[in-house]
Amino acid sequence: MSPFTGSAARTADWAHLRVRLDDGVATVTLARPEKLNALTFGAYADLRDLLAELSRERSVRALVLAGEGRGFCSGGDVDEIIGATLSMDTAQLLDFNRMTGQVVRAIRECPFPVIAAVHGVAAGAGAVLALAADFRIADPSARFAFLFTRVGLSGGDMGAAYLLPRVVGLGHATRLLMLGDPVRAPEAERIGLISELTEEGGADEAAQTLARRLADGPALAHAQTKALLTAELDMPLAASVELDASTQALLMNGEDYAEFHAAFTEKRPPKWRGR
Amino acid sequence: MSPFTGSAARTADWAHLRVRLDDGVATVTLARPEKLNALTFGAYADLRDLLAELSRERSVRALVLAGEGRGFCSGGDVDEIIGATLSMDTAQLLDFNRMTGQVVRAIRECPFPVIAAVHGVAAGAGAVLALAADFRIADPSARFAFLFTRVGLSGGDMGAAYLLPRVVGLGHATRLLMLGDPVRAPEAERIGLISELTEEGGADEAAQTLARRLADGPALAHAQTKALLTAELDMPLAASVELDASTQALLMNGEDYAEFHAAFTEKRPPKWRGR
Amino acid sequence: MSPFTGSAARTADWAHLRVRLDDGVATVTLARPEKLNALTFGAYADLRDLLAELSRERSVRALVLAGEGRGFCSGGDVDEIIGATLSMDTAQLLDFNRMTGQVVRAIRECPFPVIAAVHGVAAGAGAVLALAADFRIADPSARFAFLFTRVGLSGGDMGAAYLLPRVVGLGHATRLLMLGDPVRAPEAERIGLISELTEEGGADEAAQTLARRLADGPALAHAQTKALLTAELDMPLAASVELDASTQALLMNGEDYAEFHAAFTEKRPPKWRGR
Repeated sequence: MSPFTGSAARTADWAHLRVRLDDGVATVTLARPEKLNALTFGAYADLRDLLAELSRERSVRALVLAGEGRGFCSGGDVDEIIGATLSMDTAQLLDFNRMTGQVVRAIRECPFPVIAAVHGVAAGAGAVLALAADFRIADPSARFAFLFTRVGLSGGDMGAAYLLPRVVGLGHATRLLMLGDPVRAPEAERIGLISELTEEGGADEAAQTLARRLADGPALAHAQTKALLTAELDMPLAASVELDASTQALLMNGEDYAEFHAAFTEKRPPKWRGR
Repeated sequence: MSPFTGSAARTADWAHLRVRLDDGVATVTLARPEKLNALTFGAYADLRDLLAELSRERSVRALVLAGEGRGFCSGGDVDEIIGATLSMDTAQLLDFNRMTGQVVRAIRECPFPVIAAVHGVAAGAGAVLALAADFRIADPSARFAFLFTRVGLSGGDMGAAYLLPRVVGLGHATRLLMLGDPVRAPEAERIGLISELTEEGGADEAAQTLARRLADGPALAHAQTKALLTAELDMPLAASVELDASTQALLMNGEDYAEFHAAFTEKRPPKWRGR
Repeated sequence: MSPFTGSAARTADWAHLRVRLDDGVATVTLARPEKLNALTFGAYADLRDLLAELSRERSVRALVLAGEGRGFCSGGDVDEIIGATLSMDTAQLLDFNRMTGQVVRAIRECPFPVIAAVHGVAAGAGAVLALAADFRIADPSARFAFLFTRVGLSGGDMGAAYLLPRVVGLGHATRLLMLGDPVRAPEAERIGLISELTEEGGADEAAQTLARRLADGPALAHAQTKALLTAELDMPLAASVELDASTQALLMNGEDYAEFHAAFTEKRPPKWRGR
């Protein structure tokens, strides 16, 4: 538990997500399989609040985001979200769309790597949740579709028009966001949309294996790597080099760096502490 | 016709381009096939002014840019442009180079998607016109070449040093702009420079098909997708997420979003209005 | 020699690098093959100072960075750098990390293209030196590994978290920097990390051939292409287009542009002067 903990209580129960914590690895499962894990207002709010809690607690060193049943996530629920937003006023529409964006920012800005384990459909907001993750581990059944224009909305939803060009380049990103056509696993691998392609049905296990490796490794180094990747997308070269220098100076005072050198000298594997 | 129309007359005749309007789809053809559609001062000026007119009219929902004859466009005419610029003073040289850049900005900033239909050569400024488009549909004869250093100029012409790294990555972009070597269709597809590779001779038809699909679809959603893709290349994550939120809130008040929900509920295809 | 030369003397001897100058082509070889060219404080300092000297002299039109022996560069020396930094104070740690970043900035900002000739291992700081180059020419033995997290440090070292996403996209960059896993030549080619894959043992010769081509060509055009690519990664579209326009106006007053036109008219190859 971080010393920077205030009065806010931990949430005892996440009604809209299944959350498991296991020695530094959090596994968050979208668990509404009868609806292909379609997102509801409650699911978005829980993702926003859960990531904020986990970020301040410093108990988590890697997080897996997975979907139960036949697919990862079919996106916003047509009735419970699209239908409901049709009768909202402007302030409510802004609040809703800001909340979904806050989930993406939380995924990009939380102090641990996030691994999306994708099988089957990752559509609409589901595709953007996966896009915001640091790693996308997918099996051959994975199918990404940025469906927003198909419902009359902008392909730039929840930061997708920012993130996707930075992952696959502007040409592919324009095609995917403008048309909403599905991207199957082989194309996703070819254009750099997925990090690792597994055997059929292997995404969840591969994601757990990677999360365990990250959590057992030099977790502060991983967290800072993620923070710099996120920040330096928005920074010029000179400032990035300066940020790198001060980050490395900081970590060179850390325990893990000294431990690496000791272990190397003693010809044994390092015992990482994550600090 | 947009209500925001002032006194400026529509141009009756574009002397340096062939322009066809067909129910929301504009087709602009570089039509100087005896010179491989080499660009002249007049052609650049017409592209700049045509895009400005079409942008303010709001009559166009998709635009195809094509080349007549053996290729798409061989770039600036050696005699009529390179020869002529040799006797220009500094102010004229700036005016010329600003004009070509304005064409690229107009392609990136016009409120409708632009589809380049490329066959044969797309060289120099011709390659940059295609690069600035939202989609590049090419057949196997397509050959891109950023020839600028071959004539003693900078590879960063008309925004190419900005756009190309964002489409194919900095490594490929450096190679292509520094050396000016031709990129044939298979490599162009591999590095993400083209959006769709067609059969021999199929680029024009595929471009028309895509333009028709875009024009008949939720055109305001497409236009905003393009606007966000263009803007968010230059924006940080947090601001991008905020822009996405306000854009979606706006479109959730629009007709097409309600129409999607009604059509979905009634199990029929939506009738898009583009608003 | 540039007219903008002051009192500072040329360095007669580079103790930590082998430097050869040959008619506009500089070849800089990391020459500590018994240690896989592991970098020392002296090697970093020499790279920083050599690039500054060559940049102000204007005698160099292309630079090859190569490694002697079994590999390109294994990164910072475990004893001479990692061991030594363990007893440094904060100001020294900052000085060291700023120096390594200055080498990367010098590679990106020097007024000539830099070609990394990579065979065997390019690890840690060695991988970033290659990444900062304009061209990476590699043979099938090449193996890139961004090992920083393996020693408990941030993957964002010397600008890597800035550069790598702009070369291979954010997804691949996250994987490579977070995990430090090796990237062999076929994957490096697939994701855009190398510019040219040669036959076994062919990287040095191919790099020399390219350097000669660049040095004998319109070198001022090449230098400006590099400068614009570097600058426009950090600039918005509108400003980039303006920078391109003024750069081209400048070069259109140059000798090489006139020479191209004269040569074209006279149907002979141009004699480039690099100005």
